[in-house]
Amino acid sequence: MSKAGLVITAHPGDFVWRAGGAIALHAKRGWRMKILCLSYGERGESQFAWKKEGATLEAVKADRKREAEAAAAVLGAEIEFMDAGDYPLVTTDAMMDRAIDLFRELNPAFVLTHSLNDPYNQDHPEATRFAQHARVIAQAMGHKPSSTYSYSAPPVFLFEPHQPEMCGFVPNVILNITEVWETKFKAFQCLPAQKHLWAYYERVALNRGMQGGRNSGKAMVHGEAYQRLFPMVLEELA
Amino acid sequence: MSKAGLVITAHPGDFVWRAGGAIALHAKRGWRMKILCLSYGERGESQFAWKKEGATLEAVKADRKREAEAAAAVLGAEIEFMDAGDYPLVTTDAMMDRAIDLFRELNPAFVLTHSLNDPYNQDHPEATRFAQHARVIAQAMGHKPSSTYSYSAPPVFLFEPHQPEMCGFVPNVILNITEVWETKFKAFQCLPAQKHLWAYYERVALNRGMQGGRNSGKAMVHGEAYQRLFPMVLEELA
Amino acid sequence: MSKAGLVITAHPGDFVWRAGGAIALHAKRGWRMKILCLSYGERGESQFAWKKEGATLEAVKADRKREAEAAAAVLGAEIEFMDAGDYPLVTTDAMMDRAIDLFRELNPAFVLTHSLNDPYNQDHPEATRFAQHARVIAQAMGHKPSSTYSYSAPPVFLFEPHQPEMCGFVPNVILNITEVWETKFKAFQCLPAQKHLWAYYERVALNRGMQGGRNSGKAMVHGEAYQRLFPMVLEELA
Amino acid sequence: MSKAGLVITAHPGDFVWRAGGAIALHAKRGWRMKILCLSYGERGESQFAWKKEGATLEAVKADRKREAEAAAAVLGAEIEFMDAGDYPLVTTDAMMDRAIDLFRELNPAFVLTHSLNDPYNQDHPEATRFAQHARVIAQAMGHKPSSTYSYSAPPVFLFEPHQPEMCGFVPNVILNITEVWETKFKAFQCLPAQKHLWAYYERVALNRGMQGGRNSGKAMVHGEAYQRLFPMVLEELA
Amino acid sequence: MSKAGLVITAHPGDFVWRAGGAIALHAKRGWRMKILCLSYGERGESQFAWKKEGATLEAVKADRKREAEAAAAVLGAEIEFMDAGDYPLVTTDAMMDRAIDLFRELNPAFVLTHSLNDPYNQDHPEATRFAQHARVIAQAMGHKPSSTYSYSAPPVFLFEPHQPEMCGFVPNVILNITEVWETKFKAFQCLPAQKHLWAYYERVALNRGMQGGRNSGKAMVHGEAYQRLFPMVLEELA
Amino acid sequence: MSKAGLVITAHPGDFVWRAGGAIALHAKRGWRMKILCLSYGERGESQFAWKKEGATLEAVKADRKREAEAAAAVLGAEIEFMDAGDYPLVTTDAMMDRAIDLFRELNPAFVLTHSLNDPYNQDHPEATRFAQHARVIAQAMGHKPSSTYSYSAPPVFLFEPHQPEMCGFVPNVILNITEVWETKFKAFQCLPAQKHLWAYYERVALNRGMQGGRNSGKAMVHGEAYQRLFPMVLEELA
Repeated sequence: MSKAGLVITAHPGDFVWRAGGAIALHAKRGWRMKILCLSYGERGESQFAWKKEGATLEAVKADRKREAEAAAAVLGAEIEFMDAGDYPLVTTDAMMDRAIDLFRELNPAFVLTHSLNDPYNQDHPEATRFAQHARVIAQAMGHKPSSTYSYSAPPVFLFEPHQPEMCGFVPNVILNITEVWETKFKAFQCLPAQKHLWAYYERVALNRGMQGGRNSGKAMVHGEAYQRLFPMVLEELA
Repeated sequence: MSKAGLVITAHPGDFVWRAGGAIALHAKRGWRMKILCLSYGERGESQFAWKKEGATLEAVKADRKREAEAAAAVLGAEIEFMDAGDYPLVTTDAMMDRAIDLFRELNPAFVLTHSLNDPYNQDHPEATRFAQHARVIAQAMGHKPSSTYSYSAPPVFLFEPHQPEMCGFVPNVILNITEVWETKFKAFQCLPAQKHLWAYYERVALNRGMQGGRNSGKAMVHGEAYQRLFPMVLEELA
Repeated sequence: MSKAGLVITAHPGDFVWRAGGAIALHAKRGWRMKILCLSYGERGESQFAWKKEGATLEAVKADRKREAEAAAAVLGAEIEFMDAGDYPLVTTDAMMDRAIDLFRELNPAFVLTHSLNDPYNQDHPEATRFAQHARVIAQAMGHKPSSTYSYSAPPVFLFEPHQPEMCGFVPNVILNITEVWETKFKAFQCLPAQKHLWAYYERVALNRGMQGGRNSGKAMVHGEAYQRLFPMVLEELA
Repeated sequence: MSKAGLVITAHPGDFVWRAGGAIALHAKRGWRMKILCLSYGERGESQFAWKKEGATLEAVKADRKREAEAAAAVLGAEIEFMDAGDYPLVTTDAMMDRAIDLFRELNPAFVLTHSLNDPYNQDHPEATRFAQHARVIAQAMGHKPSSTYSYSAPPVFLFEPHQPEMCGFVPNVILNITEVWETKFKAFQCLPAQKHLWAYYERVALNRGMQGGRNSGKAMVHGEAYQRLFPMVLEELA
Repeated sequence: MSKAGLVITAHPGDFVWRAGGAIALHAKRGWRMKILCLSYGERGESQFAWKKEGATLEAVKADRKREAEAAAAVLGAEIEFMDAGDYPLVTTDAMMDRAIDLFRELNPAFVLTHSLNDPYNQDHPEATRFAQHARVIAQAMGHKPSSTYSYSAPPVFLFEPHQPEMCGFVPNVILNITEVWETKFKAFQCLPAQKHLWAYYERVALNRGMQGGRNSGKAMVHGEAYQRLFPMVLEELA
Repeated sequence: MSKAGLVITAHPGDFVWRAGGAIALHAKRGWRMKILCLSYGERGESQFAWKKEGATLEAVKADRKREAEAAAAVLGAEIEFMDAGDYPLVTTDAMMDRAIDLFRELNPAFVLTHSLNDPYNQDHPEATRFAQHARVIAQAMGHKPSSTYSYSAPPVFLFEPHQPEMCGFVPNVILNITEVWETKFKAFQCLPAQKHLWAYYERVALNRGMQGGRNSGKAMVHGEAYQRLFPMVLEELA
């Protein structure tokens, strides 16, 4: 059975800009990659849509959903939506229940989510909180007791927020995404209304790539920065 | 050519209690392990010796040197001393020069040293400062220009101080040292005067081992905790 | 049209002791200053009132409201209450909705609120959380779509808590309130039951004033300390 | 009237492993020690129980309650349960109301609870939040006005989490529990299913004991580490 | 034999403003209080003196020395100077040697010194560094081996800097100095040229006093804030 | 008389990549901008030069000096070198003396220097330390007493290091350098051997520009990030 990775994001753009490389890279290697997208970003991440006359919440959601599905497809991932709303993102017990099931179904080798803080966007740390709770509750055997699953709480990697220093984000991992950069950039193009961010996140990828080269001594072009939360257990240091 | 690891410590006990597992583990796998021991711990880490009448500095140093050499041999490592003194440890330009040469000669895959702070023992962060400077200056091509070496600044792992929380030490790596625990414990026995610490650091190893098991989901018995300083570059997240 | 400033506080005393100078100063210069006071401080900030026999919640609230209105009038500000209760302060969706409207109506040039943490008083960070959410959601075009407002999320200044170091409060702004000190002190006098705090906050103002003089090299007498949360964009550094 | 101490924990094991020494020590000296145990740890802290076929929530809860009562009795403390559930622990207004009453009834000289953060277990910081709110609201005279109680918010001591550095736990107090160690260890034995933790927490006690000896210059064997949250008022420094 | 306390300060004013209460309080109770004043503050803490025509370094030093001796006498303490210079303060091996001897001679129950950081005055953390090194080296039996002293490294209390939040100063102790306030204020008067600071530090004392009252629930008038560096070992929590 | 700004950097590239915009912007507005460049970056920042056969220290220094002078001229600034060496940068009392004089001669309205920490390059924080000491000592009237200068310690702005999060760099100021971007980029071209960094720092400028736009609500293209160290004294909040 193939390994799995889980990505939990507040809004559709997040998994594209911030984790698109990791998704494409592991998908390319045969992993089952699953995105749990908590909202459609319909109220606060769709300014372009609301500038058009006659915009309705349902139409905006449908459009954003289509785009997110297209981007997920380009990256090679499954995607599931929770429709938790945005600005603010509000999760329910049923959503938590589903997320816990998902952790157990996938038994992922890692989970990717937002930074712990983000003063610019409260939906982001709320998604992180939700992800961390589900990850831990999935360990509780007294929650839906059953002998049909195998689960070990996976390492958590926080992906890069828009303004890292303001979010207390300190990367301790740079993932080399050079070989899937073109795929990631194709996923950008599924979000045509945010074209101004394409170049922004291309620059982020190139600068993280150069930093990766400096830290490892091995050249690389594109990188994605992550903050791994829990200690890593190693059998050898290098 | 085999891979190399470098360990820079202030006093002899440090490499035994704090990094003995890593040294033994990599040595066992054929790595060249080298300890640079900046002092003999003759003034401040030899209370037992000074309680004996007639103790002299030279005799205490010679005794501690013998013990350290024995422990290094048990662990399978080379050891080099700098005789920088302790309480306080004071390094010279010549010592820095030698340390830089050593980084270039070994081109180690990692360097192990003390925590960044230690309010109980100023020699420890001084050793860290020394190690970090040497590691960086070794990169400067204008320092002793030559074409005969190959060097890439290695990742730095800080080993565990005596009271981690007081030193701002936050482990992000737990190394599984179960398979070399007996060797590490044998090295303890080369330091007979500090017998009270044998049990202390055995308990540390067992508790870090249990923590490692919890973090990885895979049982292990003995662990050593490290704080990796620089971002890690990965080709895959797990 | 005049510029506006918004002040969001948990209890009436807060805007007087902590932000009274900023309110009076900007009001004096023709700004529209608006205070959103989330509770009357009726349960936990009215110890004096409850010591009188026969005190009722409604009477205490009415008294505190009168005092707060008087203080706001002295400072030259409008005041609006939310009656969210105190100890604990509990906000509702309707309150959030009103706060968002207020941000859009005023389009303030700054918002003043509590510190991010306060282990002595959980109402304070709750007010901050509420203010920050409203400030961000007001940006979401999909929230009550309309073309009748103009809004840009304003800078946030946290005012000084009672025990700054315990709240992680690090001031990066000292506002010179010398010219409105008398007005601020008059507002103190609208809160007769807390007379012991008059002198306390006069001392705070004098000491912040002296610190301001040291930091700027220009003498001033009274100061108010603030922690500005987001980066400031400048066209010139000084 | 004897002095009182209050202990607020998320799960039964917590008060045994983390605060059992403090409880036994003060009980031995005639204090009234009260444990408020928010849940039975039935879902997430009872993995052993759920591995048995036919386990039911009620049976697991009853078993854990019995064990917790036995452990409290060994330690010499009263115990009260809230049945707030675990994984996640969810408190209600009624529970808060009871906790506030308890603070006023006991007027404790200290309250012991969990660390402020714990990324491994969200129930722990939730219990801390609950304890801190109740402690502060109990000060509000407008909450259930009455003249029959005497209350002064007590100092808060956070007890040691499982992986201190990951929880931002920095001990500033080491309590000498040598004289009650045997009692604490007897309490361990009331939790037979977690036998693997007996040795773990014995090692913690021994190592904290040695650290206590180093910090005070006076030998001690077993210690419990605490982080005191608020400044201490002293009449003399030593 | 009476207990002793040691105070290590960079400049004369420091022990008066920041620790005068602790000195007077313990002296009053029969302690031997000793001030080690590293410089006379002759270059950077004597602006008033240098504004007078014809000022010479020797004359300024002599004047500051006289004032410091007068203040120490008022407080009931011995004082010793090191003449290490100020702006910058530069210590020598001989000074360190003398400080180590002093730690051993006094075997103090506490040592008071500056905050760990102070971006306004580099002499202050330099004095702290010096004090901490001497305190630790005094433990090293290999330093001037002798059987004539008894020494245990004392707890370190950092006194309050001029702008606490900018120095990372977080008080965890408030000392009640009400009963010696008049003595402390008399010591202020030995420093006539800094009259503007008399009122500043009186306000600090009154506000720390009120904070002390809030934290302990017991009224007090004047307080001095301290940050205790190392864990405290307790036999009882309250 | 025009206002002045002072820039203190460890190596030539630093003032170009990190502060070139601020220098050009203020120079364009008629300020006297002065760069104090502590070393030529001859050993560690000239890898390209040492790859050429026959390179000598003097030749490398001369080349780097010429480049730095050209870049300073493009930016409109004066430049002064200290030849303190690099890897490691070692300053002398004479250099400190000259830097203090410079602070007094210029009485700058701001000083720009490196971040407080940089684990990749110890010369950087050493330059910051040097700058901060000189800035403070220049205040000491007892240092070279004289009545011919007027000096007030200026605000300190730390410029952006290569890997901000690893250096604890948290920007609180974004300077709009759009109007001088072409000048800054021309200065890049004076450093032909580091061509790979041109694009890197252009990306930094564009991304900081976009962040500046988000924080201010006003579009800008190129930005430079700074961390202002001391509180700002304001007469109005916005």
